[in-house]
Amino acid sequence: MNDAPHTHAPVQAVLDHLCATRADAHGRLMDFLRIPSVSAQPAHAADCRRAADWARDEFAAIGFSVRIVETAGHPVVLAQYPGPGGEAPHVLYYGHYDVQPAEPFDLWTSPPFDPVIVQGRHGPRVVARGAVDDKGQVMMWLDAFRAWHDVAGGPPARITVVLEGEEEVGSPNLEPFLRAHADALRADVAVISDTGMWDIDTPAITTRLRGLVYTEIRVRGPVRDLHSGLFGGSALNPINALTRILGDLHDAEGRVTLPGFYDGVAEISPAQAAEWARLGFDETEFLGEIGLREPAGEHGRGGLDRMWARPTADINGIWGGYQGAGAKTVIASQAGAKVSFRLVAGQDPARILESFRAFVAARAPADLAVEIDSFGMAPGFEVAAGNPFVSLARQVLAEEYGRDAVLIGSGGSIPVVESLRRILGLDTLLMGFGLADDQVHSPNEKFDLRCLDHGTNAHARFLGALAR
Amino acid sequence: MNDAPHTHAPVQAVLDHLCATRADAHGRLMDFLRIPSVSAQPAHAADCRRAADWARDEFAAIGFSVRIVETAGHPVVLAQYPGPGGEAPHVLYYGHYDVQPAEPFDLWTSPPFDPVIVQGRHGPRVVARGAVDDKGQVMMWLDAFRAWHDVAGGPPARITVVLEGEEEVGSPNLEPFLRAHADALRADVAVISDTGMWDIDTPAITTRLRGLVYTEIRVRGPVRDLHSGLFGGSALNPINALTRILGDLHDAEGRVTLPGFYDGVAEISPAQAAEWARLGFDETEFLGEIGLREPAGEHGRGGLDRMWARPTADINGIWGGYQGAGAKTVIASQAGAKVSFRLVAGQDPARILESFRAFVAARAPADLAVEIDSFGMAPGFEVAAGNPFVSLARQVLAEEYGRDAVLIGSGGSIPVVESLRRILGLDTLLMGFGLADDQVHSPNEKFDLRCLDHGTNAHARFLGALAR
Repeated sequence: MNDAPHTHAPVQAVLDHLCATRADAHGRLMDFLRIPSVSAQPAHAADCRRAADWARDEFAAIGFSVRIVETAGHPVVLAQYPGPGGEAPHVLYYGHYDVQPAEPFDLWTSPPFDPVIVQGRHGPRVVARGAVDDKGQVMMWLDAFRAWHDVAGGPPARITVVLEGEEEVGSPNLEPFLRAHADALRADVAVISDTGMWDIDTPAITTRLRGLVYTEIRVRGPVRDLHSGLFGGSALNPINALTRILGDLHDAEGRVTLPGFYDGVAEISPAQAAEWARLGFDETEFLGEIGLREPAGEHGRGGLDRMWARPTADINGIWGGYQGAGAKTVIASQAGAKVSFRLVAGQDPARILESFRAFVAARAPADLAVEIDSFGMAPGFEVAAGNPFVSLARQVLAEEYGRDAVLIGSGGSIPVVESLRRILGLDTLLMGFGLADDQVHSPNEKFDLRCLDHGTNAHARFLGALAR
Repeated sequence: MNDAPHTHAPVQAVLDHLCATRADAHGRLMDFLRIPSVSAQPAHAADCRRAADWARDEFAAIGFSVRIVETAGHPVVLAQYPGPGGEAPHVLYYGHYDVQPAEPFDLWTSPPFDPVIVQGRHGPRVVARGAVDDKGQVMMWLDAFRAWHDVAGGPPARITVVLEGEEEVGSPNLEPFLRAHADALRADVAVISDTGMWDIDTPAITTRLRGLVYTEIRVRGPVRDLHSGLFGGSALNPINALTRILGDLHDAEGRVTLPGFYDGVAEISPAQAAEWARLGFDETEFLGEIGLREPAGEHGRGGLDRMWARPTADINGIWGGYQGAGAKTVIASQAGAKVSFRLVAGQDPARILESFRAFVAARAPADLAVEIDSFGMAPGFEVAAGNPFVSLARQVLAEEYGRDAVLIGSGGSIPVVESLRRILGLDTLLMGFGLADDQVHSPNEKFDLRCLDHGTNAHARFLGALAR
């Protein structure tokens, strides 16, 4: 699909304008990055509001109607552009103006809120907290809107922007906001740029995210800790029981043994399998960086399949009895563990939780008191292969990069994607331009300007393609 | 065996003398209890020495040659009496003059080192720290020696006494002492009174103690903690692996699955089984006191069998990953557990440890780095059913109580018994007179005078029986 350019006028004019105004765009990003909008730290509450105000002014300057919507926490910037009307689609852009705390400061090579452009292996890069997550990626589509405004009076689509200020603290007030403004927000598709490329030359669309069921299991045997000599052989040991239960979570082939666990899990298509095979993912190298040599998980499957398209079970923590130095001959009264399941599309989180409860109950001795709490549940996410917005995005990415974009997955979750689907019924196009070495959430966060500029172009092209 | 009295003169004369001098005996115990010989607390070091001196003087007063032997800690009182010579056996009496700390003081109904005699449900009892553990039980045999001295010029046996002052802190200097004085200590049998009766009316000899292999296992997977979404399905989770290994320690019948674990483990004799059955042990009541209803451990066996005559495996502690509130989606780098095995006579601790290492190695994924440390090993202990000193003790207990003594076990260990066997080749006769409600190591420790007086008589009878 990259054999013939699909860019009509005025797309080329928009791209030319972007090219001619790069320095201004970079300067605006630097301004945005100078605002230390750390949502987790109360001392930066005013900075968060300053970032929201700054963004509001940006949208206002390019013809959007925009307002600051108060929440129980940091405010949301809600901006809207009516578009040309008619058949033009309605696209919801989601991003966040807040950033992670910058600590530890002493590991930064330059101050985190004093952005600098330095030379990296792929050319110049901007270094600052929020460079890629998510201010830089927000500025890509904001500047695409601006270029369309400057060249053609505005983007050729109806646009709604939700720019929140609490993504880095778990978006506690986003769902109430989405519910309260559901009518205004119910677009044809959502677009988020908060993910990554496959590599510097290979654009990617993330079409799969894994969901999560996270539980805490607490078990109790005797009412008090016991002497393991005097009671061992008669008294139930809750740690023995817990390891026996949890040790049974996987079979010898690495499959999760919960009854019905794989119900609804589809195999990836041959086309998808072939595309991932072409990526040449080297799992040995991937594991080598964390000191491992052999993949864990289900036997007989590729690494990307296991991490992107297959569900898993992991014990994230475990505790009980004596954890100090040396020996203490105790049978503990209590023990516990954190047990979570990564889910893929097609699995029902509530049924997985029920299956886990039944799995434990079937294996727990009669005297073992068991409590299982759940900390939130999210289903896996997958954009249908035929989604027209994904197809459009693949086209424009191919035009921008001269090579096909790959459809990738992520083993993790992006809760807002799940919220958008559940509350607004929206699919999300995850078109992101970060790289694996961007130091997200770490000192010296950076964003390569090559990624930033291509990403801005791609967003401008995407808007143009919407009008075709 | 309790149908005809076996007490010849002068045993009856000795018993009569003991009966006539009870008040003096009780007074001496009160004097001993007034010395706060808390071995764990440096502030009481001089009191420990005072207790040793007090005991030295007691032995000297009844014709023993006695000296204080210095150690790296509190001294040992070493007393010897040559006996009548000829065929008379040589008996080593072991006891300890040190006591546990008395804290928390505010839970005592009377000051711990100001002994009082109060009325209990079995008559008068002495309340003080050390009343039964072990000063009261030491005074039983010391007063038996005294009565023999007063009535017949001395006991009818060669006697060596080792009275140490560090039992409550793990006897760190006892083994060097035993080695240094091995020639003098190599008796025909050791006698210890630091255990209990079955109940107030039923004397008991403890003929079985379980040994112990105590290990710590530490496992490591990736070199750092990982995001469970981004790595789950590829990276080895060490907690998953640890629970899978440890969850396999028991089979569905509650048996320990280590290869060779039961090698050398003998079934109890039908006679022993019948004797234990007659005790009427109510395991449901025993477990009810700790909030449990059903016995754990090997299926199809009695509770006393499981606790006294069968080996066990218990996980005494486990840790790894996130143990805080709520959710953290982490694959931990490391995890660990304390795993111990209670052993019975016939099992080789070194082979059990090797079997555990092999068991773990056979189940550990190739990438799991495993370290296993061992914190000491002790074999199980069992006095042979035909041991002549046990037979003698049963006879004299039957004479004293008018009912048979039972041969019981203890699920725990008494390290000195193992040391005496290993270093001196001695069997130990564990003839103790404590009760389950004596509050050993707790506030308001007590010793019923009925137990004290019967125990003193039993020791006097035992000495007489040695001469027969």
